Amino acid sequence: MDGSHWVGIKAIAEEMGRRGHQVTVVIPEVSIRLGPSRHYKTVSYPVPYDQEMVDKLMDNSKENIRANKLPLVERMCQRFANIQKISSFIHTTAESLLFNSTLITSLEQQGFDAVLTDPLVPTGNLIARHLGIPSVCLLRGLPCGQDLVSAACPSPPSYVPRFLTRHTDTMSFSQRVVNVLVSMVEPLLCRLMFWRFDQLAYRFLGEEVGVAEVLADSAIWLLRYDFTMEFPRPLMPNMVLVGGINCHVRNPLPQELNQWVSGENGFIVFSLGTTVSSLPDDITHIFLQAFALIPQKVLWRYTGSVPDHIPDNVKLMKWLPQNDLLAHSGARAFLTHAGTHGLYEGVCHAVPMVMLPLFGDQYDNAHRLAGKGAGMVLDINHVTMETLIQALDEVINNTRYKSSLLKLSAIHKDRPIDPLELSVYWTEFVMRNKGAGHLRVAAQDLSWFQYHSLDVLGLLVIVVIAIVTVIVKCLSLCIRRITRKRKQD
Amino acid sequence: MDGSHWVGIKAIAEEMGRRGHQVTVVIPEVSIRLGPSRHYKTVSYPVPYDQEMVDKLMDNSKENIRANKLPLVERMCQRFANIQKISSFIHTTAESLLFNSTLITSLEQQGFDAVLTDPLVPTGNLIARHLGIPSVCLLRGLPCGQDLVSAACPSPPSYVPRFLTRHTDTMSFSQRVVNVLVSMVEPLLCRLMFWRFDQLAYRFLGEEVGVAEVLADSAIWLLRYDFTMEFPRPLMPNMVLVGGINCHVRNPLPQELNQWVSGENGFIVFSLGTTVSSLPDDITHIFLQAFALIPQKVLWRYTGSVPDHIPDNVKLMKWLPQNDLLAHSGARAFLTHAGTHGLYEGVCHAVPMVMLPLFGDQYDNAHRLAGKGAGMVLDINHVTMETLIQALDEVINNTRYKSSLLKLSAIHKDRPIDPLELSVYWTEFVMRNKGAGHLRVAAQDLSWFQYHSLDVLGLLVIVVIAIVTVIVKCLSLCIRRITRKRKQD
Repeated sequence: MDGSHWVGIKAIAEEMGRRGHQVTVVIPEVSIRLGPSRHYKTVSYPVPYDQEMVDKLMDNSKENIRANKLPLVERMCQRFANIQKISSFIHTTAESLLFNSTLITSLEQQGFDAVLTDPLVPTGNLIARHLGIPSVCLLRGLPCGQDLVSAACPSPPSYVPRFLTRHTDTMSFSQRVVNVLVSMVEPLLCRLMFWRFDQLAYRFLGEEVGVAEVLADSAIWLLRYDFTMEFPRPLMPNMVLVGGINCHVRNPLPQELNQWVSGENGFIVFSLGTTVSSLPDDITHIFLQAFALIPQKVLWRYTGSVPDHIPDNVKLMKWLPQNDLLAHSGARAFLTHAGTHGLYEGVCHAVPMVMLPLFGDQYDNAHRLAGKGAGMVLDINHVTMETLIQALDEVINNTRYKSSLLKLSAIHKDRPIDPLELSVYWTEFVMRNKGAGHLRVAAQDLSWFQYHSLDVLGLLVIVVIAIVTVIVKCLSLCIRRITRKRKQD
Repeated sequence: MDGSHWVGIKAIAEEMGRRGHQVTVVIPEVSIRLGPSRHYKTVSYPVPYDQEMVDKLMDNSKENIRANKLPLVERMCQRFANIQKISSFIHTTAESLLFNSTLITSLEQQGFDAVLTDPLVPTGNLIARHLGIPSVCLLRGLPCGQDLVSAACPSPPSYVPRFLTRHTDTMSFSQRVVNVLVSMVEPLLCRLMFWRFDQLAYRFLGEEVGVAEVLADSAIWLLRYDFTMEFPRPLMPNMVLVGGINCHVRNPLPQELNQWVSGENGFIVFSLGTTVSSLPDDITHIFLQAFALIPQKVLWRYTGSVPDHIPDNVKLMKWLPQNDLLAHSGARAFLTHAGTHGLYEGVCHAVPMVMLPLFGDQYDNAHRLAGKGAGMVLDINHVTMETLIQALDEVINNTRYKSSLLKLSAIHKDRPIDPLELSVYWTEFVMRNKGAGHLRVAAQDLSWFQYHSLDVLGLLVIVVIAIVTVIVKCLSLCIRRITRKRKQD
């Protein structure tokens, strides 16, 4: 997985390398941000697209934000077209790897101990099954809940809010109705989401399996969350919580940047994530106007064409050392799209947030954190200079945001082991023990009706009916005889 | 909780004391093995029984073993009488604490941060609720599953074997039927098990709550198991696995004992647990006869009257430093009643076992470990000199037991943190954060039909029926009109 999903995988791969393991990262020749490191070896494979095409795909984000203002049908069409484009990009990348026989043969020959992968794109899981080695999955959760199904993890819709519903764990009756309906539709969503990968699995592995079975092979699920942001829910023995995995991966700021952010008024970190390189001009203009009127400096991750008249207190950068900046004592606020990585960094360093959710789970994330007093949510399509200044002023100067965050941060960091350490531990465990067989639940060998004991309940219902019928028949026979006798008498 | 349950609580209490916490252990004046330590303060309260009565209650074990040979009805009667005695003993002890107003007032005044307790006897939980402070529970699991219900932890009967069934996690259809039936009876068992404590809760707390609600307060569940012996199953976020908590609590053997166990043939550790002080004479005789014929020395925990003619290679001791002995390189085999504490010690130090289960979960434990190749199971009522010698010879001289145990032991010990360390961490967490509110599931606020979404499903069924009815009515109306029209035509 590319984009922000790469952050956690890279952190673990680097740490494994630092500890003397031989780590090989398999990446396409062209990508958004996948890249080498001195702690691991990189093997790249050719793909039938170029950097320009990837950049253009990413630049779609501008149209996507714009699309939020379109009428429903048009918006749906544009969203669907976009999903199609990204989906096609992902499958092309997967096929380029899976059917590159030279590369696959070379992987077969190297005798790897395990595969570390993000199963949102299950290419790594297919390779693990093909190589016959265990896999360790790092993920926040699959949108349709396939990870939970494959791990046989219970997820009662009565209090586990479904993806994109914006529900909390305490739902009204009508919210629970929606949640149950969504949970009923989930298997269908999973089939839609993975149907091309199901076909790939069959073609690549040559066996009658789909993504569901392949994911069930996963030895360990490293879950990129904890219960400061997620709602508590059942877990399985092979699930390990590693939320905030990059919280402690800190480097000192480059001297020039450190100098720039210094100043008594502090600074604001502004990033809308890897996949959003720039904003529509009118929105950019609103942000710049607002920034010109606030005392804080602003560091903005911005890769689009540079607008004219940038205020003195604003610095546009193609890449931000976001976590290191948030860890700086001068960080006053975090303007974010509310992706989980950024939010955990914000919580880790207790920086109040103004959240501008754009897609997917970002709306859920933003509302959850706002509900915990960590910041405010703004709608990027209706943001004005006034609302932006007001929100920034509120989170920076009303101490309740900082104080809520300090509490959240303390709980988030109050864990027996650092999440990166824990991720490495379980990855090494899987390598040492050729998997984690002792944590595999027997539920994975049951069909869904066996799992829910429907066959047993069916039998019990039949037995009860049979007993009741026999009793009723006997009684009626007795009564008939008695009445007959009385008549005879 | 007294007996072997005290081992884990004591280990945590001592470690907390070592780390500078003020630990107060509240114990009755008379007990089986509860006692002081230099790492914590002890407060004792008077009880209306004496040591002789406790010893006599423990000595019941002899009759209990003997009872195994009685016909079913007599056996059941004796078992029931015994359970009554123990239950009465437990409730008397609990009442002596809860209604000792001087002691309770003194506890109220000391401003404790948390209560650490074994909820098999929920006195500690009642006190925690009364004092308004969080509780940390250390347990292996309650026989009727009340801990799981109170923690809202799913426990599908299709693959989670119920207590005392001797099932594994892979059950045949008929075993699943039994398991489902047992799971249906569990709520009733819980009410029977705790009905006197439910009354105590009402009397002591002065509110309409029972044990179920009081246990639901538990901030953290420290579970004394791991998945080398238990079958993998769902867990909740506030459940922490600390199986083998006393594995590393080791002291060097006293010099005299160390000298005695030394020798090229090694030694056997023999203990039937705290609650079994001696055996019926004929069984004792069989054991002594067998021990006289084997090359190993035998250390036997035995508190009854000493029999005549003890072989030279046998040493009877009132108390054994069991864990330290099992950790000794000379330990060849472990003759045990298959209580969880002993089994985890055996697994930790990879000592092959001959298991003689006597009561409760010991049959399940013994068969599970035997199934993993860690030893053999014998029936103490039908044990003969020959079968005993044969079993000891098999586990000592057939290397497959040792080799299975080395693998089990490696997995058991392959954990990111020592279980005692982890127990202390979470106890301190609860003290620092006044509980573990962020791990509490919203399921605890739902009624059982809400939890299972039965109200939602009911509505959905009604809606579907209504829609189908309307469609059918419409269709029949249409058909009627059409046919009428045709007739008119």
